[in-house]
Formats: sequence, structure tokens, C-alpha cells
Amino acid sequence: MRKTILEADLGDDVFGEDPTVNALQERVASLLGKETAMIVPTGTMANLIAVLGHCERRGCEMILGDMSHIHRYEQGGIAQVGGVHPKTLRNQPDGTFNHNELLEAVRSEDVHFPRTALVCVENTHNMAGGKVLPLHWMDELGAMCKKLNLPIHMDGARLLNAAVALKEPPSRLVRDCTSVSLCLSKGLGAPVGSLLAGPCEFIYRARRLRKVLGGGMRQAGIIAAPGLYALEHVYPRLHQDHEHIQIIAKAVAGCGSPAITCDPEGAHTNILMLNCNMAYITPQQLCQRMEEVTEEEVAVVGERVVAKMAAINLTTVRLVTHINITPEDIKALVAKMVYVIKEMDRPKSA
Amino acid sequence: MRKTILEADLGDDVFGEDPTVNALQERVASLLGKETAMIVPTGTMANLIAVLGHCERRGCEMILGDMSHIHRYEQGGIAQVGGVHPKTLRNQPDGTFNHNELLEAVRSEDVHFPRTALVCVENTHNMAGGKVLPLHWMDELGAMCKKLNLPIHMDGARLLNAAVALKEPPSRLVRDCTSVSLCLSKGLGAPVGSLLAGPCEFIYRARRLRKVLGGGMRQAGIIAAPGLYALEHVYPRLHQDHEHIQIIAKAVAGCGSPAITCDPEGAHTNILMLNCNMAYITPQQLCQRMEEVTEEEVAVVGERVVAKMAAINLTTVRLVTHINITPEDIKALVAKMVYVIKEMDRPKSA
Amino acid sequence: MRKTILEADLGDDVFGEDPTVNALQERVASLLGKETAMIVPTGTMANLIAVLGHCERRGCEMILGDMSHIHRYEQGGIAQVGGVHPKTLRNQPDGTFNHNELLEAVRSEDVHFPRTALVCVENTHNMAGGKVLPLHWMDELGAMCKKLNLPIHMDGARLLNAAVALKEPPSRLVRDCTSVSLCLSKGLGAPVGSLLAGPCEFIYRARRLRKVLGGGMRQAGIIAAPGLYALEHVYPRLHQDHEHIQIIAKAVAGCGSPAITCDPEGAHTNILMLNCNMAYITPQQLCQRMEEVTEEEVAVVGERVVAKMAAINLTTVRLVTHINITPEDIKALVAKMVYVIKEMDRPKSA
Amino acid sequence: MRKTILEADLGDDVFGEDPTVNALQERVASLLGKETAMIVPTGTMANLIAVLGHCERRGCEMILGDMSHIHRYEQGGIAQVGGVHPKTLRNQPDGTFNHNELLEAVRSEDVHFPRTALVCVENTHNMAGGKVLPLHWMDELGAMCKKLNLPIHMDGARLLNAAVALKEPPSRLVRDCTSVSLCLSKGLGAPVGSLLAGPCEFIYRARRLRKVLGGGMRQAGIIAAPGLYALEHVYPRLHQDHEHIQIIAKAVAGCGSPAITCDPEGAHTNILMLNCNMAYITPQQLCQRMEEVTEEEVAVVGERVVAKMAAINLTTVRLVTHINITPEDIKALVAKMVYVIKEMDRPKSA
Repeated sequence: MRKTILEADLGDDVFGEDPTVNALQERVASLLGKETAMIVPTGTMANLIAVLGHCERRGCEMILGDMSHIHRYEQGGIAQVGGVHPKTLRNQPDGTFNHNELLEAVRSEDVHFPRTALVCVENTHNMAGGKVLPLHWMDELGAMCKKLNLPIHMDGARLLNAAVALKEPPSRLVRDCTSVSLCLSKGLGAPVGSLLAGPCEFIYRARRLRKVLGGGMRQAGIIAAPGLYALEHVYPRLHQDHEHIQIIAKAVAGCGSPAITCDPEGAHTNILMLNCNMAYITPQQLCQRMEEVTEEEVAVVGERVVAKMAAINLTTVRLVTHINITPEDIKALVAKMVYVIKEMDRPKSA
Repeated sequence: MRKTILEADLGDDVFGEDPTVNALQERVASLLGKETAMIVPTGTMANLIAVLGHCERRGCEMILGDMSHIHRYEQGGIAQVGGVHPKTLRNQPDGTFNHNELLEAVRSEDVHFPRTALVCVENTHNMAGGKVLPLHWMDELGAMCKKLNLPIHMDGARLLNAAVALKEPPSRLVRDCTSVSLCLSKGLGAPVGSLLAGPCEFIYRARRLRKVLGGGMRQAGIIAAPGLYALEHVYPRLHQDHEHIQIIAKAVAGCGSPAITCDPEGAHTNILMLNCNMAYITPQQLCQRMEEVTEEEVAVVGERVVAKMAAINLTTVRLVTHINITPEDIKALVAKMVYVIKEMDRPKSA
Repeated sequence: MRKTILEADLGDDVFGEDPTVNALQERVASLLGKETAMIVPTGTMANLIAVLGHCERRGCEMILGDMSHIHRYEQGGIAQVGGVHPKTLRNQPDGTFNHNELLEAVRSEDVHFPRTALVCVENTHNMAGGKVLPLHWMDELGAMCKKLNLPIHMDGARLLNAAVALKEPPSRLVRDCTSVSLCLSKGLGAPVGSLLAGPCEFIYRARRLRKVLGGGMRQAGIIAAPGLYALEHVYPRLHQDHEHIQIIAKAVAGCGSPAITCDPEGAHTNILMLNCNMAYITPQQLCQRMEEVTEEEVAVVGERVVAKMAAINLTTVRLVTHINITPEDIKALVAKMVYVIKEMDRPKSA
Repeated sequence: MRKTILEADLGDDVFGEDPTVNALQERVASLLGKETAMIVPTGTMANLIAVLGHCERRGCEMILGDMSHIHRYEQGGIAQVGGVHPKTLRNQPDGTFNHNELLEAVRSEDVHFPRTALVCVENTHNMAGGKVLPLHWMDELGAMCKKLNLPIHMDGARLLNAAVALKEPPSRLVRDCTSVSLCLSKGLGAPVGSLLAGPCEFIYRARRLRKVLGGGMRQAGIIAAPGLYALEHVYPRLHQDHEHIQIIAKAVAGCGSPAITCDPEGAHTNILMLNCNMAYITPQQLCQRMEEVTEEEVAVVGERVVAKMAAINLTTVRLVTHINITPEDIKALVAKMVYVIKEMDRPKSA
């Protein structure tokens, strides 16, 4: 992937003259069914620009899920940097929210209220364990927002994983969204970069916002080149990451352990949530144990396996597969995980 | 009350030289048990300054109830004007929220997160129907926030009603709050003005915020004078407003009507929530009906009674008593309301 | 003036139902030749709302004089609260700026630039010593801004003094301004309050901004009533304040003192700038001396005269006349000032 | 330079684990004599983060030159994104400003004023034609700001050119600056990226700001690797760019043309300002002419030379040299320019 950088045609993207960037932007716009697209350094900036672009006037409010990445993991930038007020809806375990609650949340014109200017959704939904938003739910949301004259922004950092899971083109998943962000890193495995796609008029204003935030890079082709590669070569094999998650999930569930459980059917894409029974083990302990190797373990597992996982709350460990994890890695990981689970199936004595 | 304006000593409060303002500020600081206080034009400004003062650095988040006035009815000013990100907790029907949810909402130090800098509560809680926050709940919150090193701001627009209902001095109710806002209008019946009380260092910074927002008035004594009067003469009779609400609530409940119901025990102070059964009547229809007078009605009620009430959502009408509503008014209102309820107790034919 | 408060019809201006406020707003709109007007607590808020209203979208820049009140004395609220970027032009000693510099300051459409959205002027110009902007200069500015499609906001805190000096109706002075602020305190002598006038659509948005800033007062009639009185009774006698300044200015100039000088012709309205020769006296020393009374002085002046003046920079003392300063006060002040000047006309030994 | 990307060790810089990024950050911190440094996508973001980091509390004002890049070419981001109010000082033709004007601009503690929190300078100064700030001027500024307890931020996009011109280590030029930004693109010729250097505590907060703005990239090593190369291999030859400018400048000046003039002594580094006499030619016309080739010209110049230059205002064309312009390019450019100047030395007939 990195070799693509060597051969990339570069130019100054401040003036729109980097051919590799232009090619990537056209490719992504086409993939998402939008008029145009714009490269930015990160997914956080793509989302921030989208929100600020849709909420361009003073006194705007956006509606989004209370477990969404924008609300929880982007430092409150929409308010801090953009003065936009969030109105959260309770996210269901599948990453959706209730359409009626959306209806109730929309503000009437009144001096006491900010103006509802945007609805945000996330697909796949990170905190819901990479779940794919049901297509009919998106369609209903689209119809409702059309009536309300409200634009939808899709935080599509992992949108291609959702498209793969649904066996639909990405453009179908964001048909009713005015704007979409997409990450080149994460599942696609490129080193740096994200894109924001939408109508030409919107992206024109987004370029101004990118400039003021300091995201208008010069020879951004060195970022775009691996991105183009990833769309061509990594995207077609994303399904493997999903299959790998299923292998792990079924192995864990198959243990029937009271200490660590998971839901293979709920693991739609390349993320697996492992639930820890605190009577046996905490998420932190599980993560730490997976990074350690004991001699007894090697005897059983057959090799030294070190796995990086993340504790995301008081009961859950999050595990993600990606291009650099091979079928062999998965086989070894499963062996180790089964070993560790059996080890844990004795309640700890305080 | 207005006559007090004529006799008030005035000066330029931009320089702290208005003696009537100074007297009011001292009186309120003493009442609330805080070091000092500052006059502002409105309760919205008092709350806004409090939030901006507690969240003085970039990247702050505040925690507050999702039904609180600050979150719902102040145009999102904390974000729009102050760049502060709100994290809402689900308000219980009694105006409280769950302390454990608060604990979970507090952010750890991480580049992905804003910094939790403030907790806000509201007493009495407007959208909960003027409910009084239980003292033990406040005390637990205070202990928790002390451990977390988090300041509490009390939106005390109606705090004196809560104090009257609890038969406690106001200072006891805000013992663990760093700052408190208090409205001179609303229950106290003064024409204009609110106060923000807190530590000297905090109010010093608040004066800067008042200035930049345009709330630093000159001869504010014309606002302060009726405020002083209200604290001396209206505050001691607030209990009458509460008794009036009970009279109305019991009369409505006594009707046993399927169309309109209410909860006398849940009406802690000077606000009554009337629930409308939409099979019989909508909140808008009830409000409109109470502003109309029919001839048949006059024959029964004995006089022409016009009452102003507000529909606040799809099922609820909100009714507030205050100093200008006399016992005679209440008697007449009850007569009319009973008449209207009986009138409504026939299901409408579509 | 204060008695008017007693008799004022009050209502809740949050709902536009205070008849005294409505009367004042109509009166001011008519006086300034604008469609409508809105009451606010302070001139700072009037200006802030105007700027935020004209610069409603992200990324706006305003052009204003580097000695203007908005730029120097309103805590940078346009940026702090509103995110608006100021581009300053060098103010001439007469309060104007160069029209060609304005032309150069207007931004072209380019991603590197904010968007020029507003031009602000101030009349009378406070830091220029209450100077009146020449009508032809305003007319040229108006023609230029019309071509540029740029609105003008007039900081008219002291606009009525300018109108009196020019013997023109105030509406003529702001003919080409989209919005105008006007203070009821300052020269007009009312205790509290300012107004913002402009087109209906602009003031509609301004009401939202007033709300979010916390300037939407309830029974604001207690502020409006003295304001109405001031327009009727104080405005017609503003010329006396100007005459008083001339009496003082000529007396000071007539001393021919090397220590303290002034320019009677440059004192257009109710402000006089006294220049201190630091070899003799500093501004601070002059202010202090005018607040003290010596026995020798009383023998000459005939009475004990204490005058409050303000040192505004390293060489200048600012003196303002207003309704509460009588011709007798002026006579006494002149006597004292002449005495003090003579006292000063001996160089200090270091 | 690009080949370095292939061999770079990469990691996730969101967690500080990219070794190439870490190496670059250490190298730049050492070069600038600061505790640490942080990579960002652009110079605009480096400056924005610096300003927001120094002005962390509400109500701050920064002092900077009215011709500085931050004030003119960064879309007013300090106000738009950060709520910081700028106070400009008039830039001298050499890029400096008057120290006494700085002293006067510093605000005293007063509720009417924002708080002066930062002074910014720029070296080399872009709009002054790449001029180098005199070291003694910087030293005096440093001493003054130390007394005032004000931090200095250096917009050092082109700082290495200044260091080369002064024959001093870069750390000497920013000895008294708390923070410094540095661009890898521009003179250093790397494709993307800038750095912000400063004390550890400052950079810790800067990382939070980078995150919220969306500048926290993952495998940023692909940007850092060419940057390291540029510091090692391009920095030592920057003097050639300066020499090239001198060759051009002397050739232009040597023409003695009334149409196009320049000041070789004022061209300190790799920028040359060409002044156009509008009676002969406008900047736009000169730029256009330099991009065209005529047959007569080829006969004289000997080859087809196309040069890109930029018209930056109504009288000036700006020309920049960099690593990709060879001595042969310069020779050809001079030949063409002399030809064009002679061509222009006939007044145009209107």
C-alpha cells in the first residue's frame, strides 16, 4: 500500500491541484453516491466540519444518539469549537434510536429554543459493537427527515463494513443522507485520512471550514494514494474481517463460560464485544491477561500469543479485526482465548 | 411594591455604587448562605454566567437533567455562547436524577473527552411540576460532588418556593452548591431581575461575564428596590400560593373525571400539572375553554371567570399561582374549572 | 422621571405584552427612521446583538475604527461571545476613518479569508471627545457600503447629542445604517436601558439573540417608562449640556495655560477633552485635585466645589456634562477650574 | 525524500506510538530549544492551537502585527473558532512593530477589557517580503514581555530561512518565545505537515486542542518521514534559495526599469517583492506575461521559460524560490525576466 505513495502524482491541494487527491475524492463521491468529496486528516475533522457546515447559523441544535462517537469521543467539539447544542436520543442496543423520540425532539420556532438543524447517525455503530443500522430503519428516518426538512449526516467511519455486511453498495446505505464521512484508516487500513462527501455547495463551504480548522494540507496525495489503494484492494476483502469475528465469537460462546460471554449474532461486522462477569474477571484484567503469556499456556496453545484488546466500560472488552490480522492469527487467538476462559472459570477468592 | 422605586437610593452599579443594589445583593447572599451576590437582568443570564464561570477553560462539559430549564428553554446558550458541552442525565418524575448515572457520566482525563466541570440541578423543578428536590438527595449529591471535586450550580429560579415547602431556610437547600441563581420575578412577583450568588472569587469573574454579555446595568436600583420589597413582603406569604394550588388540585381530583386528572400530592408548590385525556380534550382545547365564558356557565359559576393556563406538551396543562391571585380568584377559578370538567365528561364525537 | 414608573402600564415583555415597552420601541423606531426597535438592558448588549445579528454565519469579519467603543471597551465580546473577527481601521481625530482604507479592508471570496459582513461607526464618537461624524462623510460611507452590499451598524449610544449638534433629526444621521443602538442612560439620564432599531426581520432575529444572552426581561416597562420621559423631556434640552461644555472649554482655553489646554471648537457636544502637559501635571493628578478642596481655594472660588472627571490615557482628562449638572454647577466648576489651572501654572520641581 | 516513507517505522500517533513521529518531534524540539514538539497537518493548525492554548480562559486578547499571516490569512480562526480577540499593532516594512505601541496595547484589569494573554510575531515575515526580524528587536521584545508576564508565540513557518540568513541556530531566534510553529512544507519542501514546539505542559494541552480540531492523525509517520529528511538534507541548502533570490533581484534592479523595480537588500531570504508601476503594467499582467511564451522571446532567451508568480496586492508581485528550483532554472528565469522588463519599458497606450 505504501509503495503507492512513491508513484503518486502530487500537487498543491490548497489550490485543488493534487491529481491523486482529486482521483480519491471522485472515487469516494461515486462510491457514496454524492456530488463530490473532500479529503481531511481525520474522521473527527470530517464529522466536525459536517456539523459546522449544516449548522452554519447561530443557535443551532443537532439531534444524535447518546452513544454516538460524535457525542462521546470527539471532545464535545461541536459545542466547544462550533457552538452547536446537542440533543441526544437514547441509542438502542442495535445503534438505532426511536423515530418518535426524534419527532418529539425537533424544536418549534420559539425564542426559548435553539433551531433543530441536523440529525446524525452512525453506521456501523461503534459503541453498539459495530452493528449495522437496518436499511428499513434508515429509510424511515430518511422519509421522516425529508418531511421535517432536516438534513442527515452519516458518521460513516465504518460505513464500508456495513455495506459489506448488508451486501449493498455504500451509496444505498446513505441514500437519504446529505453528507457522509468515511475513514481510510480503521478497517480500510490506510495510514491517515478521511473524506467528507456531499453536495457541491456543501463541500464548497466545507473547504472553508477545513481551512479555518487547519486541515487544508498541501501535497495531500501522499495520504490519498494509499487511500485509493485501500478502496481497490482492502475494501473487497473486508468480509474476511467479519468472518474472523464470527470464528472468535463462536469459539467464545462455545465455551459456555460463566466468566466471559458474547453474542455471535450481534457481531455484525469486525467488532466483538466480550462481556465480563465481574465475579470472575474485570475487563481490565482480561485485557492484561491477553497480553501476558504463561509457560503452562504455551504448552497448551502451542505458541506465544499476545493480543491487544480494549476495556471500554465496567463490563465490556472490545476486540477488532482488520487487514493485518491473518487467518493464522485468528486461529492462534482463539486457542489462547479458549485457554484463558477456562483458566478464568474458577470464581476468584477475594 | 413599585413605590419602593421612588424612594430608592440610586448610583452607578457599573462602579458598584448603587446602594439599593448593594443592599439587595447582601440580603440575597445572606439568605442563600453565600459570600456575595450579583444582580442580573434575567434568570437566563444568571444561569448562563454561572455555567460560563464554572466552565472557564476550553473543552468543558457540564452534567444536567434532560428536563432542566437550562437544557430545554435557554436556547442552548451554554453551547451557543459559551462552547460548553452538555451531558444529560434522565430526569426522574420528581426532578432528581440517578446518582450512579452521574458517576458514570463523569469523564476521565483523556484527549477524546471534554472535561467534566460542573453539575447543575433545579429546585423547584419546573418541568417536573414545581417539585421540591428531597433534601437527602441533595445531601448525597453534595457528598458525591465533593469527592469528585465538582462544583454544583443550583438553578434556583423558584428556590424560595422549595424552601417554604420544606420549611427550611434557603441556605440549607443550597448548602453544597457553589453557586445559586434566584429570580425576583416569577413567584416573588418583582417586575425584573435575578441574582447569582456564590464565592467572592467566582462572583468577581461573573462580573466580567455579566459585562461582556451586556448585563451590567447602571442605576439598577430601580430593579433592586422592588426586589428587596419582595423578599421582605412576598416571600413570607408564598405558602398561600401553595395552599391555593392544593385547593385547585383537590377540587379537580375530587371530580373523578376521566377527562382531566391531577395529582394533589405531587403538587409541592405553586405549580399544578393537569393531565388531559385526549379522547375528551387536548391541552390546547382546555386552555382555550378556560379563556372563554359561556352564558350557561355564568348561570352556574355566578360570575365571568377567565383563566390563563399553558399547554406544555401533548397531554399536559400547566397552571401557576402567584401573589396577584387572591383567595377569591381561587374560589372563582375552582367553580369554573369544576364546571368545565363536567362539561368535558362526555366523550367527543369525532 | 422616576414617577413615570409608578403610572406605567406593565406586562410581560417576554411575550411582547408590555404596553410601555411597546410605546418606547415605537417611539425610538420612529425617531431613528427604522421599522422597529427592541429594548435591552445595556448599550453593550445592543451593540453585541447587532454584530451577532449581522454576522449570523460562521466566519464573518466586521470592519470598525480602532478607537471605537465596541473595539476597546466591550471586552472583545464580538469575538469572545460571537466568534466575529474584527478588522480595524485607524480612527482619525474626528472619529471618522478613511474610506479608501475601508475599500482595501473588504475581503474577497477566498478560503484564507473571513467574510466581511458589517461596518460599524460611532456617533458621537466617544474616544474622539464626543465628536459628531460629518454628514457628508456618513453619506459617502453609505453610498460605498451600498455598492459593496455591506450593512452599517451605528453605535448611537450618544446619537441624540450628534443630532442636536447638527440640528438634524436623528433619522437623517442614520439614514444609510441598517441598525442603530441608542442609550437611555448617558446623556438622556434614564436609569437603565438601551434600544436596538432596525428592519423587522433583523429585530426578529435580534430577539432570539437577546433571549440567549439573557436580556429578555419581563416587566421591562419599569425601564421603558423613564426612557419615554427622557425622550420627551430631556432630549429637547440636550443642547444645554453642549453649551455648558463650551462655557468650560472657553474658560480653560482663555487661561492660556501651558499646563492644561483644550480645543473648544473640537468639543462638539457634551464631552470635553483636557490635555495635560506632563511637565506640570498628570491626568491622574488633575482628577484628584478637582476632587479636593483647599481653604485658600474656597476663599477665591466662593464655595466648596468637587468635580468628578476621568483620566482616559497618559495625557488626557475627560469631562462630561449631563442633565443633572445645572448652570450654577457650571459656573462653580469654571471658577474652580480656573483657580486650579492658575495653581498649576508653576512647573513642578522634580 | 518520498522514499523515506517506505522505510519509516509507523505506529498509531493517537497513542503516541509512531516512532518516526516521535523522532521528528524530538528533532524539532531540540532544533528550537524547546522541551517538546507535536506534529499537526498544517501551519494554520499549529498557529491556531498555539493561540487557543495560550488563551485558554474566556475573554482573552492577543496582540499581533496587522500584516501578520495569522491576522490576514487564517480566516480569523482565532476569533471564529477560539473566541480570542485580536489587538493589532501596525507592522513596519521590516515586519517588526513598535515596542511602545505594544506597551500601550496591554490591557489593565478592568471589567470593560479582555485580558491580554499573548503576543505573536512572525519570522521570516511573509507580507514584509520574507524579512528577518532583527535579533536585538526580538531580544527587547523578550525582555519587555518577560516583565509583562506575557508569553510570545512565534509563527515560524519560515523560521529556518531566518536562521540561515542570520547564521544563528534557530533556537537562538526563539529564545524568548514560549511556543514556536514550524512548517515542513514551504521552504523545506516536505509534502505535508507542521510542528508546534513548547513546554511539556503547554504541548500536553495542545494535544487536546489538536484532537478536538481533528488534527490527531494515526500513522502520521508517513508525514514525519519526509520531514526528518528535509531537516537533514534540505535545511543545509536553504542558503541557495536566498542566493537565487539575490541573483534575480540584482538582475531586475540592474535593468533600471521604470516599470518594475525591487530592493535586493530588502530581500533577506527566499522571497522577492517586485513593484509594478501601474502606468506600465499591473501585477496581474506581469504574472500572466511570465506564464506566456512568445516566439520573439524564445529567439532571445534561448528556451521556453514559464514562471509562476503571485500578485498579492495592487502594486506587488511575489516570487519565491525553493528546493525544486535549480541554478539553471534561475539562469533561465533571469533571462526571461530581463526580456519581459525591456518589453514593458514602453508606456502602454490606453
